[in-house]
Amino acid sequence: MKKQESFQNIFEKVFALITPGEEEQRELREMADLLVERINAFKPQYQVRGMLVGSAARNTWISGEHDIDVFILFSENTERRELEEMGLNIARAVLADAEEIEERYAEHPYLHGRMKGYEIDIVPCYNIKDPHRIKSAVDRTPHHNQFIQQHINSLEGDVRLAKQFLKTAGIYGSELRTQGFSGYLTELLIIHHGSFLNLLRAASDWKPPVTIDIQQHAACTHDAPLIVIDPVDPRRNVASVLSLDNLCRFIDAARSFLEQPDMEYFIKPTQTHPSLQEIMEILSKRGTALSGISFSRPNIVEDDLYPQLEKMRDSLLKLLDANDFRVVNSGYLVLETQAYLVFELFEAVLPGVRKHTGPPAWARKHAEKFKAKYAAHPESLSCIYIEDGRYHIDLLRRHTTPESLLQREILKCGLGKHIAQSIREHGFNILPHQELLRVEHPEFQVFLYNLLVRKQPS
Amino acid sequence: MKKQESFQNIFEKVFALITPGEEEQRELREMADLLVERINAFKPQYQVRGMLVGSAARNTWISGEHDIDVFILFSENTERRELEEMGLNIARAVLADAEEIEERYAEHPYLHGRMKGYEIDIVPCYNIKDPHRIKSAVDRTPHHNQFIQQHINSLEGDVRLAKQFLKTAGIYGSELRTQGFSGYLTELLIIHHGSFLNLLRAASDWKPPVTIDIQQHAACTHDAPLIVIDPVDPRRNVASVLSLDNLCRFIDAARSFLEQPDMEYFIKPTQTHPSLQEIMEILSKRGTALSGISFSRPNIVEDDLYPQLEKMRDSLLKLLDANDFRVVNSGYLVLETQAYLVFELFEAVLPGVRKHTGPPAWARKHAEKFKAKYAAHPESLSCIYIEDGRYHIDLLRRHTTPESLLQREILKCGLGKHIAQSIREHGFNILPHQELLRVEHPEFQVFLYNLLVRKQPS
Repeated sequence: MKKQESFQNIFEKVFALITPGEEEQRELREMADLLVERINAFKPQYQVRGMLVGSAARNTWISGEHDIDVFILFSENTERRELEEMGLNIARAVLADAEEIEERYAEHPYLHGRMKGYEIDIVPCYNIKDPHRIKSAVDRTPHHNQFIQQHINSLEGDVRLAKQFLKTAGIYGSELRTQGFSGYLTELLIIHHGSFLNLLRAASDWKPPVTIDIQQHAACTHDAPLIVIDPVDPRRNVASVLSLDNLCRFIDAARSFLEQPDMEYFIKPTQTHPSLQEIMEILSKRGTALSGISFSRPNIVEDDLYPQLEKMRDSLLKLLDANDFRVVNSGYLVLETQAYLVFELFEAVLPGVRKHTGPPAWARKHAEKFKAKYAAHPESLSCIYIEDGRYHIDLLRRHTTPESLLQREILKCGLGKHIAQSIREHGFNILPHQELLRVEHPEFQVFLYNLLVRKQPS
Repeated sequence: MKKQESFQNIFEKVFALITPGEEEQRELREMADLLVERINAFKPQYQVRGMLVGSAARNTWISGEHDIDVFILFSENTERRELEEMGLNIARAVLADAEEIEERYAEHPYLHGRMKGYEIDIVPCYNIKDPHRIKSAVDRTPHHNQFIQQHINSLEGDVRLAKQFLKTAGIYGSELRTQGFSGYLTELLIIHHGSFLNLLRAASDWKPPVTIDIQQHAACTHDAPLIVIDPVDPRRNVASVLSLDNLCRFIDAARSFLEQPDMEYFIKPTQTHPSLQEIMEILSKRGTALSGISFSRPNIVEDDLYPQLEKMRDSLLKLLDANDFRVVNSGYLVLETQAYLVFELFEAVLPGVRKHTGPPAWARKHAEKFKAKYAAHPESLSCIYIEDGRYHIDLLRRHTTPESLLQREILKCGLGKHIAQSIREHGFNILPHQELLRVEHPEFQVFLYNLLVRKQPS
């Protein structure tokens, strides 16, 4: 009972922070109406109509967020080229008085603009009645909009609580950088469970893989930790981007909050900037060695960049492991023009010797080759010896430091197209321990600190 | 053809070194006859008879070896107690004029004595016609003797070559310390293959497991790299003690000798005593750290001691591994009163941090316990974090040096009965790198040198 009160108290306080005020709502609505009207003005000419979608349409946005997504719905029999061209033309007209506009690409090109403090996307799509017959992923959005509006059933406040909770835990957003919960996924979870508290209670007992199929119409299987079948598309998992660890972080946060309700689950802590002194004290306690690489940030969108960074990290982890370096932790950071990949290692220097394993003694041909090659090898540090039935020899290690290894081998690793290109064109810097401590960018120091204390950035 | 000559040349030279001269043979035969006669003198009283067995009986001994094994054969219906008592009494009378005698134990007690430069074993056993009905392992020996004498077919010289070859490779002897080829096994291999050269040629193509069953009468299966069914016991593998690595060393040596025949395969190199300077130079190239333990040598026979040393080494390797220490190589040495166990490690000191893995995030009860325990743990060096679906926390490492770990944990490890007893009663010394270099015993320095350059002691 006491806890129940405590929940309500906290939620009231959170609502006061995240529910848009009447004035804020009216202003956003006016801006949205203006954009839709401007699109509709093209109706006679192009058979299009404007539609406000996303959290602004569903009233599930959080105070302070000023994102407006408006779709231009074209008739189903428009040519794709025509849709793309006219779509952009109409969008440019709609955003004619924006302070800034930018062409962006999803499956179609679309326009992003900033206008009177709002971040606005104007996205052309097909107006397709039957969502099973959509022509591109964005054509689903009007259907999502419709489903949520029909089923939200006054749960907008609970959606806002859930979003704020996920944001604070650092797991909100379906970009590949975050691999968290999308807004639509959050809305579906609230609709399915009936309230934010019910969602937390359910999540407390989740054991991946968890499947939720509101319409009971799943049409195929999915390999993912959380599977939420899209109510408008029986073949689609709305949660396909969510990583196992982010799902686990949600399960963990849900349990912790229910156990000990606190405002801290809804307010991002102000990240204090650690001093170099603090970082060095932690490093000295951990006794580990840092090693890193920096290179020019390729000029591509985050959803292209982050998977490449992940691929690069995996390749280099394999390289380090194959060369006997033990990595405690690793992470990457993208700043304005530079990207960084940093490893925390067991040791800065490996011994000069490495054990080289040869063929089994009974594999005669291989054995003869091995013995001929290593009989008087200039890099040998031992006799040829037999262990577990195989030939071995101890050889001089080529790379006793991670820096020497990375310097020499990085271009042979799988790095992702644009990162490899950046490194080939602009080179890269190997950053040993001391140089990493000398990078003066405050964001870099926060990154280093979080990497060392294993703090999940929120 | 040239190689064939070369083999013959070498064998002639080896024969000159290892074949006992006429004088040497006559003297040994006289001593053996004397011992057998002395036993036969007890025939009227106890229905016993003496029998010369082993390499002396089969004329497969190597010049300079003065081992004589004489068995006292008791009638099958003698009581076991009687056999043991009378056996020892007779043996004492036989060895009355020995310079030194010692009671030893196999399945029965027996007497070992040194007399006029000969090492003599006088062993009581049952005289059992049918080897399938033997009462103890030693009862098989007279049958082995008979089989070899009936089948040796003038191959004594080849047996001597094989023994000398195996000795030089450090793999002759079926004691648990060596885990090599016994004399009987060597004789059987020569009988089976018809000559030393044929044995080498066959071994060059061996792929373990290798099975040899001269009498084609195997009565059960064996899990061993080399299986040589005892011609006098279809259930017994004569090569059961031989380790995989020693079998591989034989395969390797056989191939190498056939490829490039040389006297070096028959003459043990005189082990030069490495200087401390040499050891330190190798260590500095290898860049590794040494750590060791010494303790009082338990007063037990080698066949009991070496398996315990092996067990101790295995336990401590597991302990080191579980605590993140990486061992490059390890070895033990038994001196007069002390035993040593030495590890060559990747590093002398580990970083202060260790990663502690907790339960999966979805194992609610375990998760709650883990979080309660580590929420504000005094040894934590990080937040509690989630990785691969599991809780983790970085904690202060308890033991950053192998010395601290071994000092604290050795008595909790499986050490073998007598070693554990020795350590509990007399304690143990932890020997860090520098102290190991200060051990002045010349045998210890040879051991350390061989450990580092991975030289198989011969």
